[in-house]
Amino acid sequence: MDKFLITGSSGFVSKHFLDYLESLSEHSSVMGIDLHTPEFDVTKFHRVECKFESLDLLDKDAMQNIIYQYQPSYILHLAAYSSVSFSWKNPILSFQNNTNIFLNLIEAVRTLGLKTRILSVGSSEEYGNVSEKDIPLREDMPLSPVSPYAVARISQEMLSQIYAKGYNIDVVITRSFNHVGPGQKDVFAISSFAKQVAEASLKRAQKVTVTTGDLRIIRDFTDVRDVVRAYHGLLKKGESGEIYNVCSGQGSSLSEILSKIGNVAAVEIEHIVDPKLVRPQDNRVIIGSNEKIKHSLGWNLEIPLATSLKDVVEDWKQRLSK
Amino acid sequence: MDKFLITGSSGFVSKHFLDYLESLSEHSSVMGIDLHTPEFDVTKFHRVECKFESLDLLDKDAMQNIIYQYQPSYILHLAAYSSVSFSWKNPILSFQNNTNIFLNLIEAVRTLGLKTRILSVGSSEEYGNVSEKDIPLREDMPLSPVSPYAVARISQEMLSQIYAKGYNIDVVITRSFNHVGPGQKDVFAISSFAKQVAEASLKRAQKVTVTTGDLRIIRDFTDVRDVVRAYHGLLKKGESGEIYNVCSGQGSSLSEILSKIGNVAAVEIEHIVDPKLVRPQDNRVIIGSNEKIKHSLGWNLEIPLATSLKDVVEDWKQRLSK
Repeated sequence: MDKFLITGSSGFVSKHFLDYLESLSEHSSVMGIDLHTPEFDVTKFHRVECKFESLDLLDKDAMQNIIYQYQPSYILHLAAYSSVSFSWKNPILSFQNNTNIFLNLIEAVRTLGLKTRILSVGSSEEYGNVSEKDIPLREDMPLSPVSPYAVARISQEMLSQIYAKGYNIDVVITRSFNHVGPGQKDVFAISSFAKQVAEASLKRAQKVTVTTGDLRIIRDFTDVRDVVRAYHGLLKKGESGEIYNVCSGQGSSLSEILSKIGNVAAVEIEHIVDPKLVRPQDNRVIIGSNEKIKHSLGWNLEIPLATSLKDVVEDWKQRLSK
Repeated sequence: MDKFLITGSSGFVSKHFLDYLESLSEHSSVMGIDLHTPEFDVTKFHRVECKFESLDLLDKDAMQNIIYQYQPSYILHLAAYSSVSFSWKNPILSFQNNTNIFLNLIEAVRTLGLKTRILSVGSSEEYGNVSEKDIPLREDMPLSPVSPYAVARISQEMLSQIYAKGYNIDVVITRSFNHVGPGQKDVFAISSFAKQVAEASLKRAQKVTVTTGDLRIIRDFTDVRDVVRAYHGLLKKGESGEIYNVCSGQGSSLSEILSKIGNVAAVEIEHIVDPKLVRPQDNRVIIGSNEKIKHSLGWNLEIPLATSLKDVVEDWKQRLSK
């Protein structure tokens, strides 16, 4: 039976990873670690045996102890402080809770002498300031970080590669692009739009004014359920020390997405731009190339964006009705 | 009066920086911080007013307090765990005592709102695995780190650039190559050779067998007295956010250097290779380009390698005679 240790196990991506494990024919065991207890029900699974420990990953001795006790075959490292804007406000906490926690984790695996495979989840933010001629972004492009968060992720990635080459630790690396899907917090653009539209829809309003940031920016969104299949595939079949973009390879402007959400919910949409939600000097277009992961794993998108948007609106209706 | 805060103030480079300040016509004030008290005499100066505080730079509140009290015009950040081999043994301590201490330092300057200029000292190790066609190494080359230490230094450098661009913090960055000069510890090749030869010379031996690593490797050595002039020049005239190689631009094989040390001391030299001193997979040639710093500062080498070697042997004779 596969044993997965998941850091950041109480979050949105972890929840979908557990759902994916439950959908497989083989049984699996999961040890979740997180600062917070999960808000979703971990007892609902039949094929996944779930345990949970509350832990600050900066406490390296406690982390090492849990890893030693559990002896995972795989570690899915989702824990992160993934907000770019927070990293500008507190770069030390951002760095510690991205780079240092990862270093504690991989060093625990090394010093314990385990054969555990680690998935080091990184971010498309690592590409940083990119030129439109470089779209779609490929893994071998030079990186040009523009935030403390991006630096923390690149540091994590470089450490992963040193551990793979220098210590022969089994670690596969991602640069993950934007996610979309049910359960995401409303600090993310699509989830925020869907929430506002779902509220209007529940009130049977025919028209809604959605507060947005800059709708002209184009991003590469992948359904979180496709993302977790990619993570599972990388843990099973990725190559140690290699970096894989996890992305759809397709770009959509936020304005297109907002209008599709209106169609899904059958609500007429206007919008008002909140200047606080507009990031200065943001890239206009971020689209990744997913050729490498497709070629290496045979991974492919299964959920089209229209389905994701429908599910996200539906999910918000359910959450708001409770 | 210029006020310099020097981290790692008890070390070899700091001692020479203080000697350089003493040689200038204007007076200056120095606050040294280090874990260890300096072994050299800080009361011998006439033009430099020296204070010292013992401090662990990982204690960010204590560091911030000292910076606030002292209000330095310049920070020369020399503190580091600069051993590559140590970084392989304890990557967490290496990372914390390179990257995290630097982040604590620059974040203290930012949160205090000071106009202090920082010199972020980095390493030629950042270049990593280089091809001989790329020699001499220029600052705009892609980096290919091959040790935890190198990753820690690149992380420090990326953070420096983010602070310069994103927060408008005044920070100048170096990639410093090998140093040579009186007072260096004998864990470094030239200092070790000179010590062994000085010992033989003091015993009036005509011949000595020196224990060495791989003598074929070619490195770029700069006299520490030229290095500290470069650091002073960069603090005074470097451009914020820019990276400068600090190097001689000339390569010497360790075998040439050993033979020159023999000439200086008038001792016949044989050598024996200690396999423990041979680094696996080390680059054969590391030479930097110093065009940028020369062009920007008008900095130039003043001390030829032959003089450095003579001074190092003389210094060891004095240290060993005590």
